[in-house]
Amino acid sequence: MKFALLFFVFILFLIGCSSDNKENNKSSLSESTDLKSDSIQPIAIVIHGGAGTILKENLSDSLEAAYLTLLDSLISSGFERLENGEIGMDVVESIINFMEDSPLFNAGRGAVFTANGENELDASIMHGRERNAGAVAGVKRVQYPISLARKVMENSDHVLLMGSGAEEFAASNGVVLIDPSYFYVESRYQSLLRVQEKEALNKNTQKEKYGTVGCVVLDAYGDIVAGTSTGGMTNKKWGRVGDSPIIGAGTFADNSSVGVSATGWGEYFIRYSVAYDIAALFLYKGLSLQAACDEVIHQKLAPIGGDGGVVALDKHGKVSLTFNSKGMYRAAKNNNGVKIVAIFE
Amino acid sequence: MKFALLFFVFILFLIGCSSDNKENNKSSLSESTDLKSDSIQPIAIVIHGGAGTILKENLSDSLEAAYLTLLDSLISSGFERLENGEIGMDVVESIINFMEDSPLFNAGRGAVFTANGENELDASIMHGRERNAGAVAGVKRVQYPISLARKVMENSDHVLLMGSGAEEFAASNGVVLIDPSYFYVESRYQSLLRVQEKEALNKNTQKEKYGTVGCVVLDAYGDIVAGTSTGGMTNKKWGRVGDSPIIGAGTFADNSSVGVSATGWGEYFIRYSVAYDIAALFLYKGLSLQAACDEVIHQKLAPIGGDGGVVALDKHGKVSLTFNSKGMYRAAKNNNGVKIVAIFE
Repeated sequence: MKFALLFFVFILFLIGCSSDNKENNKSSLSESTDLKSDSIQPIAIVIHGGAGTILKENLSDSLEAAYLTLLDSLISSGFERLENGEIGMDVVESIINFMEDSPLFNAGRGAVFTANGENELDASIMHGRERNAGAVAGVKRVQYPISLARKVMENSDHVLLMGSGAEEFAASNGVVLIDPSYFYVESRYQSLLRVQEKEALNKNTQKEKYGTVGCVVLDAYGDIVAGTSTGGMTNKKWGRVGDSPIIGAGTFADNSSVGVSATGWGEYFIRYSVAYDIAALFLYKGLSLQAACDEVIHQKLAPIGGDGGVVALDKHGKVSLTFNSKGMYRAAKNNNGVKIVAIFE
Repeated sequence: MKFALLFFVFILFLIGCSSDNKENNKSSLSESTDLKSDSIQPIAIVIHGGAGTILKENLSDSLEAAYLTLLDSLISSGFERLENGEIGMDVVESIINFMEDSPLFNAGRGAVFTANGENELDASIMHGRERNAGAVAGVKRVQYPISLARKVMENSDHVLLMGSGAEEFAASNGVVLIDPSYFYVESRYQSLLRVQEKEALNKNTQKEKYGTVGCVVLDAYGDIVAGTSTGGMTNKKWGRVGDSPIIGAGTFADNSSVGVSATGWGEYFIRYSVAYDIAALFLYKGLSLQAACDEVIHQKLAPIGGDGGVVALDKHGKVSLTFNSKGMYRAAKNNNGVKIVAIFE
């Protein structure tokens, strides 16, 4: 609780910095205004910090406020950077880096623990112009998995690298490998003990074990970029990989249709190719973005217990934040007047 | 060459055994005839043993004959077992086991070597009734990766397990872990040396590095099952994972639409969600199976260099063997008069 308040203060400090930057960068701000008035190019950003059994009664007012303030700060600064003409890849990477730094989210620092008491991280990123993509699964010594996924996309012929091999690639690309103890967050370790205790009593813990962060943008150049990063599932065993590093399941981007980042019970999201299915419904069946998200999340996944949700946007800058769980940490903003920051239904 | 001829003789022997079985199992054969006459349920099977730069001039007549005989034997025995009412999961698993046993294919024994001189195997399987799936990536001590993928599907809550974690799961499910030297096949090791030599001279080796096996069936109960198994890419580094263990990319099955197993340059197949895209075109755009395969393999992948192909079938028992490379080891048979066994275009 104490750290949540500290974090809240830290966020307020960051917002302060961000306002300072505004003052110091009037030239780029006015450029952005020009960009907006000269062009009808839509821009948009959507963010999530995970979905699942987020019960209002379990979230103190101050922690809820901290989440909302953080999401508000992220969506505002991300949108402003898009307005300023920053490329989508940079915005997605740094928004997710910020969430990877925060112990509030299950990604980077704040990742949940495996059954062995380790942290195994997954991430993926996709650029919609040529559908290039990069992903990593099961890395243990990489501070920013989303940045490593980007390096896989940009500096290798591959899409998905796993385990110690992915870390070798990281090292050979100048990424400093950190000590795994960096990822230790006391509250996450307590979650592991709690889940292990419940599982020993054969209690269902499925819904409390997930969490992910993600960001999708449509930038000023018409490029859709989507990224997802996670610490996986509390108490996971056997090198389990969820949907976050799977292109087409947890992450998808295509300039001709949509960009999607998913969060939820990963096995269902893999079996239902969730992120790509939303694109396919949009492209082939002519559904709107919202109708496509509704069909996948509510019609297909909900009836079979596939808890979770997606944040998505289409090439026109429309946004959708759709989930079938109790809550999803989420935010959206576009240049057509939409701004959303919310946790519960 | 000598081993190819030996293998050929072995296959002739197996075909002999299979005919013997026919004699000894007249009751089940007549059952199958009844099944066929009493019902219009279509049944079908498609198989591939990889695609790529298979040049006729590089394949001796005797080796070509060995491949064709093996494919013929596999498609005939698989079809017969479906006629006899065996469930699709069993047929797909054992057909792929047979190919995993054969050093002629890049899967199981016969897997290509990584840059470190190891063999890292991937596989996935999917059942179309409830879209259940299992997959493993980067296992080094498992003789039959497709069987382990099935165990992941049937005995765990997960879809994808990787690396040593997947092997721990295997051991805890009664799978005997074998010594990695089992996978050593001299011709594959020579391929590694040849590719490494060429790469040192900056020559393009991309097209000679791939290979996969796969099988899709529509069984007598209307269930579509698809499976894929591979040794990955010659000289692969950094724990690279291709499309074979990725549900929606290398493998997909859904009773309401199609089943697909893919082979080719895996990175493209992941970025284009190839296996699921064929299903989506069939379901949402109303394309025929062949038109859907053509759109993905010829219209989408070929122009960007995404070499490879798929074997696929639909819920009506129609089959498609579609590739944009020089050849694909392939076979198909259904109860509507189709039988194909071929390598080149």
